[in-house]
Amino acid sequence: MNWTSKHLLGLEGASREEILTILDTAAKFREVLGRQVKKVPTLRGITVVNLFFEASTRTRMSFELAEKRLSADTLSFTAATSSVKKGETLRDTARNIEAMMVDMVVIRHSSAGAPHFLAGHLDASIINAGDGAHEHPTQGLLDLFTMRDRLGELEGRRVTIVGDVLHSRVARSDVWGLTALGAEVTLCGPSTFMPAEVERIGVSVTSDLSEAVRDADVVNVLRIQQERLDGCYLPSLREYSTLFGITRDRVAQMKPDVVIMHPGPINRGVELAPDVADGERSVILDQVTNGVAVRMAVIYLLSRARAAERVEESEILAEVGL
Amino acid sequence: MNWTSKHLLGLEGASREEILTILDTAAKFREVLGRQVKKVPTLRGITVVNLFFEASTRTRMSFELAEKRLSADTLSFTAATSSVKKGETLRDTARNIEAMMVDMVVIRHSSAGAPHFLAGHLDASIINAGDGAHEHPTQGLLDLFTMRDRLGELEGRRVTIVGDVLHSRVARSDVWGLTALGAEVTLCGPSTFMPAEVERIGVSVTSDLSEAVRDADVVNVLRIQQERLDGCYLPSLREYSTLFGITRDRVAQMKPDVVIMHPGPINRGVELAPDVADGERSVILDQVTNGVAVRMAVIYLLSRARAAERVEESEILAEVGL
Amino acid sequence: MNWTSKHLLGLEGASREEILTILDTAAKFREVLGRQVKKVPTLRGITVVNLFFEASTRTRMSFELAEKRLSADTLSFTAATSSVKKGETLRDTARNIEAMMVDMVVIRHSSAGAPHFLAGHLDASIINAGDGAHEHPTQGLLDLFTMRDRLGELEGRRVTIVGDVLHSRVARSDVWGLTALGAEVTLCGPSTFMPAEVERIGVSVTSDLSEAVRDADVVNVLRIQQERLDGCYLPSLREYSTLFGITRDRVAQMKPDVVIMHPGPINRGVELAPDVADGERSVILDQVTNGVAVRMAVIYLLSRARAAERVEESEILAEVGL
Repeated sequence: MNWTSKHLLGLEGASREEILTILDTAAKFREVLGRQVKKVPTLRGITVVNLFFEASTRTRMSFELAEKRLSADTLSFTAATSSVKKGETLRDTARNIEAMMVDMVVIRHSSAGAPHFLAGHLDASIINAGDGAHEHPTQGLLDLFTMRDRLGELEGRRVTIVGDVLHSRVARSDVWGLTALGAEVTLCGPSTFMPAEVERIGVSVTSDLSEAVRDADVVNVLRIQQERLDGCYLPSLREYSTLFGITRDRVAQMKPDVVIMHPGPINRGVELAPDVADGERSVILDQVTNGVAVRMAVIYLLSRARAAERVEESEILAEVGL
Repeated sequence: MNWTSKHLLGLEGASREEILTILDTAAKFREVLGRQVKKVPTLRGITVVNLFFEASTRTRMSFELAEKRLSADTLSFTAATSSVKKGETLRDTARNIEAMMVDMVVIRHSSAGAPHFLAGHLDASIINAGDGAHEHPTQGLLDLFTMRDRLGELEGRRVTIVGDVLHSRVARSDVWGLTALGAEVTLCGPSTFMPAEVERIGVSVTSDLSEAVRDADVVNVLRIQQERLDGCYLPSLREYSTLFGITRDRVAQMKPDVVIMHPGPINRGVELAPDVADGERSVILDQVTNGVAVRMAVIYLLSRARAAERVEESEILAEVGL
Repeated sequence: MNWTSKHLLGLEGASREEILTILDTAAKFREVLGRQVKKVPTLRGITVVNLFFEASTRTRMSFELAEKRLSADTLSFTAATSSVKKGETLRDTARNIEAMMVDMVVIRHSSAGAPHFLAGHLDASIINAGDGAHEHPTQGLLDLFTMRDRLGELEGRRVTIVGDVLHSRVARSDVWGLTALGAEVTLCGPSTFMPAEVERIGVSVTSDLSEAVRDADVVNVLRIQQERLDGCYLPSLREYSTLFGITRDRVAQMKPDVVIMHPGPINRGVELAPDVADGERSVILDQVTNGVAVRMAVIYLLSRARAAERVEESEILAEVGL
């Protein structure tokens, strides 16, 4: 399939074919990462700006690595050192970046919709690296890649997501991607952490962890944000851990070949026991490796779509004699 | 004309020929920026260090892009993460950078004269990226480039600068550059924002905005620094905006082909109305694009002057038998 | 000699031959730094991550320059912007970096042993860029390089280290390196700043500065950390400066060709008088230049050892039919 979209803003609405195109392309880049020289000259001369309005090590590093391994030029900005402090609007920041003729912008922002806003105002390709509690599509894609790598096609596979789904952009992207590929999704956690009316889009919701994980092919454990532990959402960390923490005993009740995932960073001993995180069912570090390959694939495909669009534009201009 | 200076510290004292050499070189790089691969191998193996002792997104990004598009190696440091906190003097910081055999240093500093200080102590080429309220020569040059791009030669053209001229390094560099090219400069703003005895260097000063903009070919609107609004300089933001803000009604009183500029970041609705900032007379985003080209030109010319100086030195050494 | 170690964690236990291999390799890179294009393509396609959990300008910059001059891809992270804030363990941070298939990690950390911990958990090569008060081996090596550059072989040479040896990772690395090369080391400072039982490893300790520097070939002056001046270690800055500060008068009592060193940043007028720091006996800026060459040598040698190890592994796998 030919990838035609210039942006990656989310997995909501992405088709099965689009997702598989990314995953198949990522598989090729995954192979490049196994070589001693993990670099291809594909994006030489292309400039990517990483705009992180929220702190991040792993995602920013994963994107920077993906960009450098494609031989792109990269610039990185974090909120702390930016003129955002001077009260500039996101639109003005964006248009300035645009005017500098940047080819691609990777943006993480605390406001849901910030990447979509940029996409509406810029000629550059936009990649959403996490917007509020909305989406984190490259994380969703690397989760899909990792599941497919272990299980083969995901049609009919059972995936359980455990934790604070309400505030999780990872969970949202996972749900859109998994349902597009035909997987059966169950969300599990305290009812205060479950989004309203989510059954409408065809996923199951439960607060019974034993039931939720019993037949699961994959259990994806979300990170508990410490800032939620203010008494409104969670009575206490200990109670959460007792009811929903994934321990070795819990894993013993799951299918023997269950795949345990976590988007990181892990609160060891809270949502996930250390011996499970490091155990043989865990693919957490594979997720990290696959993340670089998936991001290389996304950057590559968007860049190609962008170039194609330009060729088309110039052909149209040529036809009309410009 | 052959460019011979090793540093760019300010536009004060720059000759018409020197400025035109930079602008003509920038025009060539401006063309490179229109290509799909916006990169030339000119500065391969040359190391540029960006030393930003004040926060900045747009200027730092513009310099980094210019450096990368010339294929230079770049390192960036901001005050927050530097050993400046350990109480090291600027001179020691500078000499350490020097000892690491860096070719060029781009410096932004809150103290006027910091770049000149470095130039006196280092063998590296120094580019002033803004020093206190003193100068910001690459901004001045990109302003000149943008005006010339729209108006042709600037001899006899009328340029009005509106706002807090007293604290503006942009205004200072603009004034030096514009007067060198023979433009007629008018400064306009509250009298507390006007520098003393500035008429001496041949510019007009007024507090009457209507008069100042009536016959202007260019109106350059300066950013109002929020920290000046402490009652000493300005009675209130609202009063400033009413008296000196550039609104659509104001623009209607100007020449129909007036060029509206702003160095950014804009305080929308304070010194500049949003519909003017985004309107057809505005060249604000052109300024940003041209900024990359101008910085490429400056880095390129300084680097060539530096190489020429080295050749000359080695010829002298050869002559004396060393 | 063939360098075989994959990591550089410290100079404790390093053999004379190993140290000389690094110094001899650094001498070749020192020559590269004198060229106009100070760059070699040796590490193209290799990724180095600089993980700085403590603020640093000079060491980080020196490493970044060394990496870029070897044509490696570099990523830099400082604690301020990392997910360390999110409470992730060093081990998880490390394993994530590992999973991204990074070739080398340069780490500075406030905890002694952090680099050793990483080396035990990662496949990547680890370079210690300073761990607590434990070691700073590349600083030790650049000190050795600079001394050898001035004095020839160090066997039997007298080196005096003055200052807060107890808290100095630089002093520790110097002592291990110097004793391996057969130099005679004297430590001098207030008794509260002297480590216990250090005579065991064959160095002398004294609080008498005159005696300590009289016959020294090298006087290495340590930086006084302002945070030690809390009354527990030092009565006052003035008293320290009077008793142990290296002034021009002190230098007059030393050997005429004594070499004065300091790891920087200097507290001018405290441990070192400005005219001595900038005087003809000082090699402080040579240390900085040599630091880049030494770091290029270390990165190059570790990278070669790593590649050799991989070849060996694949040969073993081939032999056993895998």
